[in-house]
Amino acid sequence: MRAYDIIKNKRDAKENTKEEIAFMINGYLENRIPDYQVSSWLMAIFFNHLTEEESYNLTDVMLKSGDIIDLSRITGKKIDKHSTGGVGDKTTIAIAPMVASLGVKIAKLSGRSLGHTGGTIDKLESIPGFKTSLTTKEFFEIANNVGIVVAGQTGNIAPADKKLYSLRDSTATVEELSLIASSIMSKKLAITSDGILLDIKVGSGAFMKNLEDAKELGRIMLKIAKRYDKNTIALITNMDQPLGENIGNALEVMEAIDTVKGRGPKDFSELCLEISSHMASLSGIITYEEARKKLIENIEHGIVKEKMKEWIKAQGGKEEVVDDPSKYLNIAPKTLEFKAKEQGYITFIDTEKIGLASMVLGAGRQKKEDIIDKSVGLTINKKLGDKVEEGETIAKLFVSEKSDVDASLKLLNEAYNISKENPKGINKNVILDVLFSDEKS
Amino acid sequence: MRAYDIIKNKRDAKENTKEEIAFMINGYLENRIPDYQVSSWLMAIFFNHLTEEESYNLTDVMLKSGDIIDLSRITGKKIDKHSTGGVGDKTTIAIAPMVASLGVKIAKLSGRSLGHTGGTIDKLESIPGFKTSLTTKEFFEIANNVGIVVAGQTGNIAPADKKLYSLRDSTATVEELSLIASSIMSKKLAITSDGILLDIKVGSGAFMKNLEDAKELGRIMLKIAKRYDKNTIALITNMDQPLGENIGNALEVMEAIDTVKGRGPKDFSELCLEISSHMASLSGIITYEEARKKLIENIEHGIVKEKMKEWIKAQGGKEEVVDDPSKYLNIAPKTLEFKAKEQGYITFIDTEKIGLASMVLGAGRQKKEDIIDKSVGLTINKKLGDKVEEGETIAKLFVSEKSDVDASLKLLNEAYNISKENPKGINKNVILDVLFSDEKS
Repeated sequence: MRAYDIIKNKRDAKENTKEEIAFMINGYLENRIPDYQVSSWLMAIFFNHLTEEESYNLTDVMLKSGDIIDLSRITGKKIDKHSTGGVGDKTTIAIAPMVASLGVKIAKLSGRSLGHTGGTIDKLESIPGFKTSLTTKEFFEIANNVGIVVAGQTGNIAPADKKLYSLRDSTATVEELSLIASSIMSKKLAITSDGILLDIKVGSGAFMKNLEDAKELGRIMLKIAKRYDKNTIALITNMDQPLGENIGNALEVMEAIDTVKGRGPKDFSELCLEISSHMASLSGIITYEEARKKLIENIEHGIVKEKMKEWIKAQGGKEEVVDDPSKYLNIAPKTLEFKAKEQGYITFIDTEKIGLASMVLGAGRQKKEDIIDKSVGLTINKKLGDKVEEGETIAKLFVSEKSDVDASLKLLNEAYNISKENPKGINKNVILDVLFSDEKS
Repeated sequence: MRAYDIIKNKRDAKENTKEEIAFMINGYLENRIPDYQVSSWLMAIFFNHLTEEESYNLTDVMLKSGDIIDLSRITGKKIDKHSTGGVGDKTTIAIAPMVASLGVKIAKLSGRSLGHTGGTIDKLESIPGFKTSLTTKEFFEIANNVGIVVAGQTGNIAPADKKLYSLRDSTATVEELSLIASSIMSKKLAITSDGILLDIKVGSGAFMKNLEDAKELGRIMLKIAKRYDKNTIALITNMDQPLGENIGNALEVMEAIDTVKGRGPKDFSELCLEISSHMASLSGIITYEEARKKLIENIEHGIVKEKMKEWIKAQGGKEEVVDDPSKYLNIAPKTLEFKAKEQGYITFIDTEKIGLASMVLGAGRQKKEDIIDKSVGLTINKKLGDKVEEGETIAKLFVSEKSDVDASLKLLNEAYNISKENPKGINKNVILDVLFSDEKS
């Protein structure tokens, strides 16, 4: 077998066999195949895409390149979630106690990625005392006793994906749906959950910019999941504006707490209800409709709130934060306002730029070495379709001495499109589509 | 400027600027840009092709990456020729004295490539005493005095092309017309001739397998040439069967000698007449029609033959070879015959395999280190459309002790397709098309 022929086959739109894909990926991981051959193969894949069979085979080879995290030591049903990422996405923190309140377990490993804010792990660490670095024993004990555990990712999950992703990142081959699908699924399937909820975000603040691409990504991932008999649902969700109102680490935890108490922003609360209900349904112990009804009750009766406190306490955090978040969370005291320059309607939000406006305040990492300031961020007062008067506050900035306020204001100014006309046809729905694995593609 | 953006632009079918192409190519040559970025860029070019402007810019950057060979020290008009390569292609050796007999000069630098036989340099060295390694002084003196000089290539012509070609060769990106065109032209334009004749071969024995691709390659090269105001003509010529009858080094020289004496095979003689006439016309001192008429006379009157003797003598070779080639050329004395197994008509020749049948006898190089046996090779008795009787000789093998005769016979057997039906529609024309630089594309 020669790497040359594998590249040439893909280039000429012939299907690569499982043996060829394994030869390429394992050869690359073990430095037998040079990066320049792999990168030209990746570009050929960009143009000719992977077939369903190839996506499965690539996923399988990458997932088997590293550790398999076996969750069978946790009793009951464990459902995992993956979000493709967006601005203001604090969903995991809110849905964990919601799902657990229905008797379904959440045992998540999470990374610290680059982006507008920190990852879930960074956000959780803005809770005083909250420990995300757990021993294996602690991880399984908390999962079994509380039904929720979220820890920093250790170990060696899908190292082939990691190496391949880094090559894609420098050769303009990231934006290929079949490669994205295989990359995500190789990591998700390396953890033996009972089901996976995929939250695929689409819009101006997401990697996916159009609905059709987002759906296609979902369909590819569902097909891969099916090959492993893994119950999976893909939600296509709206990222044409920030999710909820708060962006930043402590600010997002605050909003997640509000939400589990039934006082969260409408769009974010709805997303959490939907995600939690579908996750619970994946366990097979409750239907989606029952789950949704029960969740509303559980929130109303404070059961979800109590679950959150139990979880925070189990991971060493100050549980009182749930009762009085503004007392225990460190939110930057210095604020300023971004105001409308003219009267009108908000017709478009470049949500990516809102994210960057938060990052330049210090809430996110540009480089791996960057230190996050968990106290800074933004709150968004005006969203798509809202009317604003001249001088009215659109967003509030929570800043520290290191924040680049000028850059942040400039980005916010560029991000908001205000028009005299009352806009029509803006889709403010949070859930755009739900894909099930037995649906025809 | 970032290599990433240059790749992304090409991937998204946006034109790369001259600055971007120079950044990429010079960066690669100077090891500032890693090969894995260049190879993904090359694969993006494979799919999206280079625009006319990009082909020109790539050619220009590569040609300026090395030495420029200035032929202005040679008086008169110097016309260069390039062949994309085929089986039995001894054209340069025959056309050089033909063109020179019309007062147009040939000063060629030639390499020793891999292939079915040696390069022109290897072939010429089968003439006793013939020197292909010349000093600069000798090179220019012979060109000025005789009007013909053919020497081995020294110096550093288009090193960027060399490095890029080697990367293309291992990443399945050789077969892109715009890259092929830029590669050839960067080398040809580094030598300051007064015109270039491109012989683009198409068919079962050529790199180009279909006529449309060959024409498109010609058109791209002509457009590049036009940017340099270089008079250029592209001939599209037939390589669906070996050119002439002899394959091998000394055997091909013998056929070239026969041809300048007016006794060559019909197809090869016609090709030489056409190429020489067009080359002479490129000089501007004679029209194509006049050149063709004059050439036929010059051959008849022995003027071309005398020119060849003069040339051979000037480069140190035994000129008597032209009068009695079988006496002075070392042709393997041991021969055997490849015979028809059945009666029928020759309907198809896999010419590539005929070339390999010659190579395994020892006539060509598989690896750079291989030593060529100049005495071995094949003569072809039967060509496309010919009738053969059972047991009739199709080809004759000239072999040495090191020749792999079994492999050669096996290849010949696979190469010839013999059918009971008299085939129709076989195009035996040598010249398939002539493209001029002012023709509409």
